[in-house]
Amino acid sequence: MPELNALVAQHAAGLDRAREAIRSRDYFSAYAESPSTRVWGEAAPTDGLAAFEALRHKPFPLDTPGAAGTIAPERSPYGLELAVDYPHVHNDGVDTLVAAAKIGLPQWRDAGPAARTAVGIEILARINARSFEFAHAVMHTTGQPFVMAFQAGCAHAQDRALEAIAYAYDAMTQAPRSASWEKPRGKGEPQRLAKTFTVVPRGVALVIGCATFPTWNSYPGLFASLVTGNPVIVKPHPRAVLPLALTVAVARDVLTEYGFDPNLVTLAVEDVGQALATPLATHPDVRIVDYTGSSGYGEWLEANARQARVFTEKAGVNCVVVDSTDNLSGLAANLAFSLSLCSGQMCTTPQTILIPRSGIDTDQGHRSVDDVIAALAAALEGLLGEPARAVNILGAIGDDEVLHRLERAAKLGDVAIASRAVDHPEFAAAAVRTPLVVRLAVDDDTYARECFGPVAFVVETDGTPASLDVWRRVATERGSLTASIYSTDADVLAAAENVALDVGVSISCNLTDDVYVNQTAAFSDFHGTGANPAANASLTDVAFVADRFRIVESRRPA
Amino acid sequence: MPELNALVAQHAAGLDRAREAIRSRDYFSAYAESPSTRVWGEAAPTDGLAAFEALRHKPFPLDTPGAAGTIAPERSPYGLELAVDYPHVHNDGVDTLVAAAKIGLPQWRDAGPAARTAVGIEILARINARSFEFAHAVMHTTGQPFVMAFQAGCAHAQDRALEAIAYAYDAMTQAPRSASWEKPRGKGEPQRLAKTFTVVPRGVALVIGCATFPTWNSYPGLFASLVTGNPVIVKPHPRAVLPLALTVAVARDVLTEYGFDPNLVTLAVEDVGQALATPLATHPDVRIVDYTGSSGYGEWLEANARQARVFTEKAGVNCVVVDSTDNLSGLAANLAFSLSLCSGQMCTTPQTILIPRSGIDTDQGHRSVDDVIAALAAALEGLLGEPARAVNILGAIGDDEVLHRLERAAKLGDVAIASRAVDHPEFAAAAVRTPLVVRLAVDDDTYARECFGPVAFVVETDGTPASLDVWRRVATERGSLTASIYSTDADVLAAAENVALDVGVSISCNLTDDVYVNQTAAFSDFHGTGANPAANASLTDVAFVADRFRIVESRRPA
Repeated sequence: MPELNALVAQHAAGLDRAREAIRSRDYFSAYAESPSTRVWGEAAPTDGLAAFEALRHKPFPLDTPGAAGTIAPERSPYGLELAVDYPHVHNDGVDTLVAAAKIGLPQWRDAGPAARTAVGIEILARINARSFEFAHAVMHTTGQPFVMAFQAGCAHAQDRALEAIAYAYDAMTQAPRSASWEKPRGKGEPQRLAKTFTVVPRGVALVIGCATFPTWNSYPGLFASLVTGNPVIVKPHPRAVLPLALTVAVARDVLTEYGFDPNLVTLAVEDVGQALATPLATHPDVRIVDYTGSSGYGEWLEANARQARVFTEKAGVNCVVVDSTDNLSGLAANLAFSLSLCSGQMCTTPQTILIPRSGIDTDQGHRSVDDVIAALAAALEGLLGEPARAVNILGAIGDDEVLHRLERAAKLGDVAIASRAVDHPEFAAAAVRTPLVVRLAVDDDTYARECFGPVAFVVETDGTPASLDVWRRVATERGSLTASIYSTDADVLAAAENVALDVGVSISCNLTDDVYVNQTAAFSDFHGTGANPAANASLTDVAFVADRFRIVESRRPA
Repeated sequence: MPELNALVAQHAAGLDRAREAIRSRDYFSAYAESPSTRVWGEAAPTDGLAAFEALRHKPFPLDTPGAAGTIAPERSPYGLELAVDYPHVHNDGVDTLVAAAKIGLPQWRDAGPAARTAVGIEILARINARSFEFAHAVMHTTGQPFVMAFQAGCAHAQDRALEAIAYAYDAMTQAPRSASWEKPRGKGEPQRLAKTFTVVPRGVALVIGCATFPTWNSYPGLFASLVTGNPVIVKPHPRAVLPLALTVAVARDVLTEYGFDPNLVTLAVEDVGQALATPLATHPDVRIVDYTGSSGYGEWLEANARQARVFTEKAGVNCVVVDSTDNLSGLAANLAFSLSLCSGQMCTTPQTILIPRSGIDTDQGHRSVDDVIAALAAALEGLLGEPARAVNILGAIGDDEVLHRLERAAKLGDVAIASRAVDHPEFAAAAVRTPLVVRLAVDDDTYARECFGPVAFVVETDGTPASLDVWRRVATERGSLTASIYSTDADVLAAAENVALDVGVSISCNLTDDVYVNQTAAFSDFHGTGANPAANASLTDVAFVADRFRIVESRRPA
């Protein structure tokens, strides 16, 4: 069996670098985001594709305690038949699964923070080496375009995982493993005690994955729980299993290799509509739940999974306040890209664009709301006019409900920019749609409700103060994952930043280049704040990790 | 107005020392625990007593928004008439009080972590300077003996507060206030963003005090919430208002002096039985609750104050596993003191003493259970035989329910050591009782239920493994704040430490000198673990502070 100490030494420098990064929050990335052969070698793309292809039409090589039979609930938004069979966990298999997860806990706990952290980083290293395979798995479950699947689903997800590991390591080692306590007495010998402080996990952790970002959103909770000593049950969305199945398989391999129980990380695959998350999340021995998904179920979990510490990333309504700009075309191009990326199927995609009805000052002179919309339309056309390029940004829409919502949205108000279908040059079955932009009146509350998918609303207001008020109300009542403002006026930016503090939403100002409001950089940007209804946690801060473990002390006379 | 920057500089060294202490967890104390005139000067005791006396029979000089009329709900367990009138907050005054608390939030938030931390330490410094006055206030509300009131109610409470401030400061400053993010591009200029990260409070914090340790148990939450930016409403137990009223008054003075809204810290005094905590804790704008008290109401808060992050220190059953000892008289003396201190009215007092029915090996040879009880009885007599000394350890019992419970407990099983009344040499009205020790059969679940007050149970088991099993069951089902073991066998100690990890209870081993299981040292020992039903939080760890604030980011092109 390989040496744990050697693994700790092997990953020490990488851990230290990550720990520095979370304290400076300057730019840092541990994993290459470009799928270039210059980085990965000539064979990597074809090898990765072949590895992905080899998974199709087969039972996935993984056991899950408590499973009975198999199930293949996925369908590629690109029309590719996946037919990967997974062990099926029925709702009555939960007790067996949770019991199996607990068996390895004492050994994993006793291994200590350094060893667990090194194992976590080793799992990431092996996942990283298979990034092309993972990217195809992400692409064909979520509908993301390949490059996005490679970046967000692989490199960025891995960075987010390492970031969470670094926070967890810092939190676990904030207290020393031992202390020599010596309290002076007035006379005579001091009181002397030898003390030990041991990190103990809360119990079994559950990670509930989402359909759109199965790795990126699941990894922080998964790795934070694991390295703090908790066995982790991963319950993927039934439409996006494969990326997490691969993840779990790698984790189990590494755990086994280092002499730990592989059931410290298990995969619980359910059928669509089975609601397996409910008995799992409310099981008495499940003590941590990480969830990404709809606000409704997230709030249900917060209210009902009372025996667990529940971390939720839910949904919100993201506003864009347009006040003025010195770069209208940049504004339009940036916003067009943000609305288009992954067909707007990101919890961070802007939805509600607030513009003074009197128009805005720009580098091209004063421009009316119609002018701004025209600029946005032109930018969308420039970005998405060519199908081969368009599909690399939009990806495909795998969820019929999103397509229906898009159809219904066109009837909600005046269509400012119509959505159109794009023929995918490679995958004929893929549903590809450009963003729809609808004009709504400021007294129409529709814009304050989440409309997940490629839909945005333009709302005319009485002016920027009114826009800020709308944003304040929407963020307070519905929550937001992101917000953005465009203004050339320092006072307006300061006022917007003040609203951001009041409503607990992070803000991006004047993004006109190739940084987008819907993308956050691991190690630097926080994803969500936990301070508004869209999420009760942030990826990743101290609070996200500190409550996943407790400290047990032993003291005795020295 | 004095300079905030000067205050930050003034307290920087003290803060740094406290931050070092929480990372080494070696011995450290910022505040002198001895009420000696060598430390405090000749005049301090009389000045402190005079200051306390000057508070009696008067309205307490403090305003509370939303209060109507006054109330004087306290009665000294020593029989002294207090007659301090406080503003009375009725349940229908909660909205006004919470609204007033919120007004100062933005300014307090914008002052930043360093300024808030310095203000917190300054409040402590001023409280510390009035320790004698505070000690009398603690003594005459809780019934603690004076020296205990001085130590636990003043120095140790202040240390716990500073410890919480140090943790909070570390957590708040883990992320920088700003970052210059520069991401290399393949070609051309890097992407450059200027980012700021601002600590924002959760909202209004509520601190619900207890009757027995109004300062010690309330300070960590109070100061952690305050320095992380949250306005704090302090709702004392109606029988132990004065120490927290003094605390709030000092806090308001310091806040006012530095230009902040005094209503950032308010006092909500209620009548006995009014249940003011319920509308306060469930108010939509109350976002943090710190609670010390009964398990029943603590669990109610956890279940119902859903809009808030709830930190609870509840009750448990603390076990002592006696396996063997090389110092029987030390064991007996140590245990006798622990059972006697504050009449056993500490959540950390041992209750259930587990001894093998075959007796134990000791430095005096093999000793039967009867022999061990006899040693304990002798130690209690030695400790408490002299009334003047006894009352300095026992204090007085102010809660009639504790006296009734003590009477009832004598009928629960065979009385091994009877409780007796002690005449207080100074306060004739004080109810003073020595500990009662009752023998219970191992199949009598009575010993597994909390019996708060000067009552302990001796339970004979089939041997130490059986004792460990009983402890495991009791700690898992009922929770424990402390546990202790006596053994000369390294394997038994290791087995006990392993149970401690499994059940999430910190353990003290072989305490035979003058360190007691029911006392924890700030900056070194954690109080509670949060890992068993007795408490969902620990005083103080990273998890206790990290979720009291969130981080809001702003980013813009650099």
